[in-house]
Amino acid sequence: MTDAKQLHDESIIIDGLIIAKWERELFEDMRKGGLTAANCTVSVWEDFQKTVDNISAMNKLIEDNSDLVMKVKTTADILKAKELGKTGLMMGFQNAHAFEDQIGYVQVFKDLGVGVVQMCYNTQNLVGTGCYERDGGLSGFGHEIVAEMNRVGIMCDLSHVGSKTSEEVILASKKPVCYSHCLPSGLKDHPRNKSDAELKFIADHGGFIGVTMFAPFLKNGINSSIQDYVEAIRYIVNIAGIDSVGIGTDFTQGHGKDFFEWLTHDKGYARRLTNFGKIVNPEGIRTVGEFPNLTEALLKDGFTAEETAKIMGGNWVRVLKDVWGA
Amino acid sequence: MTDAKQLHDESIIIDGLIIAKWERELFEDMRKGGLTAANCTVSVWEDFQKTVDNISAMNKLIEDNSDLVMKVKTTADILKAKELGKTGLMMGFQNAHAFEDQIGYVQVFKDLGVGVVQMCYNTQNLVGTGCYERDGGLSGFGHEIVAEMNRVGIMCDLSHVGSKTSEEVILASKKPVCYSHCLPSGLKDHPRNKSDAELKFIADHGGFIGVTMFAPFLKNGINSSIQDYVEAIRYIVNIAGIDSVGIGTDFTQGHGKDFFEWLTHDKGYARRLTNFGKIVNPEGIRTVGEFPNLTEALLKDGFTAEETAKIMGGNWVRVLKDVWGA
Repeated sequence: MTDAKQLHDESIIIDGLIIAKWERELFEDMRKGGLTAANCTVSVWEDFQKTVDNISAMNKLIEDNSDLVMKVKTTADILKAKELGKTGLMMGFQNAHAFEDQIGYVQVFKDLGVGVVQMCYNTQNLVGTGCYERDGGLSGFGHEIVAEMNRVGIMCDLSHVGSKTSEEVILASKKPVCYSHCLPSGLKDHPRNKSDAELKFIADHGGFIGVTMFAPFLKNGINSSIQDYVEAIRYIVNIAGIDSVGIGTDFTQGHGKDFFEWLTHDKGYARRLTNFGKIVNPEGIRTVGEFPNLTEALLKDGFTAEETAKIMGGNWVRVLKDVWGA
Repeated sequence: MTDAKQLHDESIIIDGLIIAKWERELFEDMRKGGLTAANCTVSVWEDFQKTVDNISAMNKLIEDNSDLVMKVKTTADILKAKELGKTGLMMGFQNAHAFEDQIGYVQVFKDLGVGVVQMCYNTQNLVGTGCYERDGGLSGFGHEIVAEMNRVGIMCDLSHVGSKTSEEVILASKKPVCYSHCLPSGLKDHPRNKSDAELKFIADHGGFIGVTMFAPFLKNGINSSIQDYVEAIRYIVNIAGIDSVGIGTDFTQGHGKDFFEWLTHDKGYARRLTNFGKIVNPEGIRTVGEFPNLTEALLKDGFTAEETAKIMGGNWVRVLKDVWGA
């Protein structure tokens, strides 16, 4: 029988979406969890300049904690992080809002190290519409942004994007796109969850699905355990296939009430879009440091060592290389 | 028989939309044309700060040419301009883009003197979608912006707005809204022209229609004369009624090729949305200074003196007072 700890230690472990509080305590927990790399959100409602400020702050944090973390711009950097025993930090946006109305900012942010950008966050922007309001689809400008993201090598993320805009991005993109952090509506009906048809559609078009464990979207809510998370992963693997699925936890570790108030209001302050209530991560994976439990739980559920390693990070590395080109 | 010159001189003459080059030569022509007030575009693709810069520049121009023009923030100011023999300059936007993602900027711009704001210019923004692409309707944020414009007293303009967004703004607004400068698609089919049903819908909901003479949208294109313009006004009056119609020329006097290239590309530089070709205003009203010819042509077409005065400006003053509250 496969030794779970050994497999976890030897594998590339990728978290496709973390929006935690960026600080040394988290980086220590990432090392405890054996995380090789993580897609770290540095923009949600922020405009261009405030996003650049966030990136500057992240650069300094990485510099100040270079014993634990390093910046990741290519998949070669991910392998390097594994070799050095550090956690690689990829930078990502959950909203194309930071591109403002400038197609040229796509290249600018790529040069600053941004590798994954979600097209919309919950509501309408210049590109398309999010999943919490009526969705008119990908705009003409949105088509230009997708083409430019393809050109420079930034992955299109559709997790919080509306169904119509998502479908049109999947069709428009010449490179694989992803739901970096989602759950199936087949297990719980929720505006943020994806239908079987949507999951199949993205996979059939070469896209990728990171599975989240965000409790409000799980069947058993805040009473969920790591088993519920594995059930959702298994559900999506059955639809999308073993090569198209990875992890995207949506860990919010370290954030308080103000942060969630900001997240759940349009533009960070306008009308309320949703109310998560109390957030408790599934038992067994409450913190980033408990990441090894997930490898163990997947093996226990019957995934082979090879399949488990793919889900835990191998698949992410492959698809990111397809998009980034290196 | 009514003396056209006398009627023109005694009436309030309002141009509901001018996007000319702001300079003394134009102000002199406005005086020659007997213009009492005009809605002057100070923002199309510009963001918040660049729009403030445009307003600052306009403030200085008004100051430097105070023998010819004055700033207009209320309809009382319009009457004052008439009394002083000056042309009152109202400031307006052709795009809500300058509000960016800040509902608070609506009040800020009202305080700076902005009285009319078009919700979208040709394409999608945070509020809705323009008339040159598929239109998903008024966004949730758009509903908040309409409510705030109602509250502070800025008129919603729908001229370049898509059909669905327009309908939803008309229904959402608690104050009259307008097409400040449009033509009927009943006379020429064009994405910028409005159908009989659309014209009737806005009028039935207390809204207002300013008629443009922009040659590419007229039946006879650049071979049009002032008669074609009067035909279009008559056409719209027959649908909307004599009290709901005014003038909104869309004069672009003083601008060169670069300006039209900027206007006809999304965001001012991205993909081309339309190509006007050569622009020649209708014979008889090629310049702002020829405004008196329009009063004469309306009378000749059979409008009474009272009706002509309403179309030439009286109606605009009434509806602006409804929206502005003063």
